Amino acid sequence: MRTRNVKNKEEILENCSLVIRNPMDYKGNWHDVFQNNQEIHLEIGMGKGKFIYEMAKLYPDINFIGVEKSDSILAKAILRMPETLPNLRLICLDALELANVFDHEITTIYLNFSDPWPKNRHQNRRLTSPKFLQVYDLLFQDKNQIALRTDNELLFAYSLKTLSQHGYYFEEVSLDYHKEKQDQTFVMTEYEEKFSSKGKNIFYLFAKKR
Amino acid sequence: MRTRNVKNKEEILENCSLVIRNPMDYKGNWHDVFQNNQEIHLEIGMGKGKFIYEMAKLYPDINFIGVEKSDSILAKAILRMPETLPNLRLICLDALELANVFDHEITTIYLNFSDPWPKNRHQNRRLTSPKFLQVYDLLFQDKNQIALRTDNELLFAYSLKTLSQHGYYFEEVSLDYHKEKQDQTFVMTEYEEKFSSKGKNIFYLFAKKR
Repeated sequence: MRTRNVKNKEEILENCSLVIRNPMDYKGNWHDVFQNNQEIHLEIGMGKGKFIYEMAKLYPDINFIGVEKSDSILAKAILRMPETLPNLRLICLDALELANVFDHEITTIYLNFSDPWPKNRHQNRRLTSPKFLQVYDLLFQDKNQIALRTDNELLFAYSLKTLSQHGYYFEEVSLDYHKEKQDQTFVMTEYEEKFSSKGKNIFYLFAKKR
Repeated sequence: MRTRNVKNKEEILENCSLVIRNPMDYKGNWHDVFQNNQEIHLEIGMGKGKFIYEMAKLYPDINFIGVEKSDSILAKAILRMPETLPNLRLICLDALELANVFDHEITTIYLNFSDPWPKNRHQNRRLTSPKFLQVYDLLFQDKNQIALRTDNELLFAYSLKTLSQHGYYFEEVSLDYHKEKQDQTFVMTEYEEKFSSKGKNIFYLFAKKR
C-alpha cells in the first residue's frame, strides 16, 4: 500500500499505549505483556487496522498483535481506532524480523490482502513464500494456523502450493468467501469492503500444519 | 452426464478392440495387456473420450485407460474415435470398483469436469471424497499423482481440502488454467471447449502424495 507520509507519525506512535516500540525486548515473554495466558494471534500487514481492531473487540478472550511495516500507515491506523483495547498491541516491523520478536508463542497468523508481488522474480517477497513459512515456524507455539484472504488469483494459487508443500493441510478453502460466510461475527478489512461491494470474489483458506 | 440410450451399445462395445470387457481378470497384469512397461495413466469419467484419445495420440510412450460408468456414453465415445491406438484401452466400470481392477500399477489419475454433487449429503459421491482417495491409494504404483480440472468452484475448493488432508501437496494450482496454459500440447475435453469459449474460468490442480 502506498501512502502519503504522515507528518507527526513519530509523535502518534510514541503516544499510543497500544504500540510496542521495542518489540525485540519481549521475545518469549509476550504473555507477560498481556498479563494473561490467552492465545496470541498475529496479523501481518495490518494496514489501516480495521480487521485487527474489530477482531480484538469481538474476541476479548484472544490477544491480538497487529504488525505493519510502514510507520505512516501504522500512524494512520492508530488515528482511526476509537479506543484502546486491553487485548490489542501494535508493532512497526518488517515481517522478516518476526523471528527476532516472537519465540513459539503465536497460535494463528492472519494474512489479509497481502501484496501479491505478481512478478516471478519477486515471489520471495510474498508473505507465503517458503522463506516466510520458515520464519513462521519459529513463531508458532504448538500448532501452526494461517488464515489467508485475498482477491488475487495468483497469490491464492501460489499460497495453496507453498503451504501444502511446507506440510500444511487446508481445513477451509473458499473461492467465494463472502457468499459462503454470512454470519454476524465476520470482520472485513477496509480493502475487502471496497472489493466486495464491486462484486469481486474473495478467496479464503485456513491452513493447519501436521 | 445424462445421455440418451444408445441402441446397439452392446454391439459397439463388443466389437471395439479397445474395450476390455472383463477388466477384473487383468488385476496386477495391466502391463501385459499393453505388452510394455510404460507408465499407465487413468481417466476416471472419460465421458465422450476426446481427452483420453488425444492424450494417447500425443503421448505414445504412456499407456492410457479411460474409465466410464455409463455403457451408452462409452459407446458414443467409441463411435467418435477416428482409429484404435496401441496405447489406449477403455473400461466400462463404476469408480468404486477400481480397486478390484488395478493393483498398484497406475502413476497418474485424471479427473476432468467430474460431477460436483453440490449437495452436502452427496459429498461422498464426489471423486475426490476421502472414500475415493482411499480407493486410489490401492491403484497407485510408487507415487500418487492426480490431475484435476473443473469449472466448479465448490468441487475445486472441496478437492483442495480433501487432497491436502489425505497427504497430498500441490505442485500446480491455477484458478484460470486456460489463461496460463498456452502451449500446443494442451488437450481439452468437449465440455471444457464449450465452457472456455464462454469465457468461464477453468480451475486446475496437480497433486502428489508425500
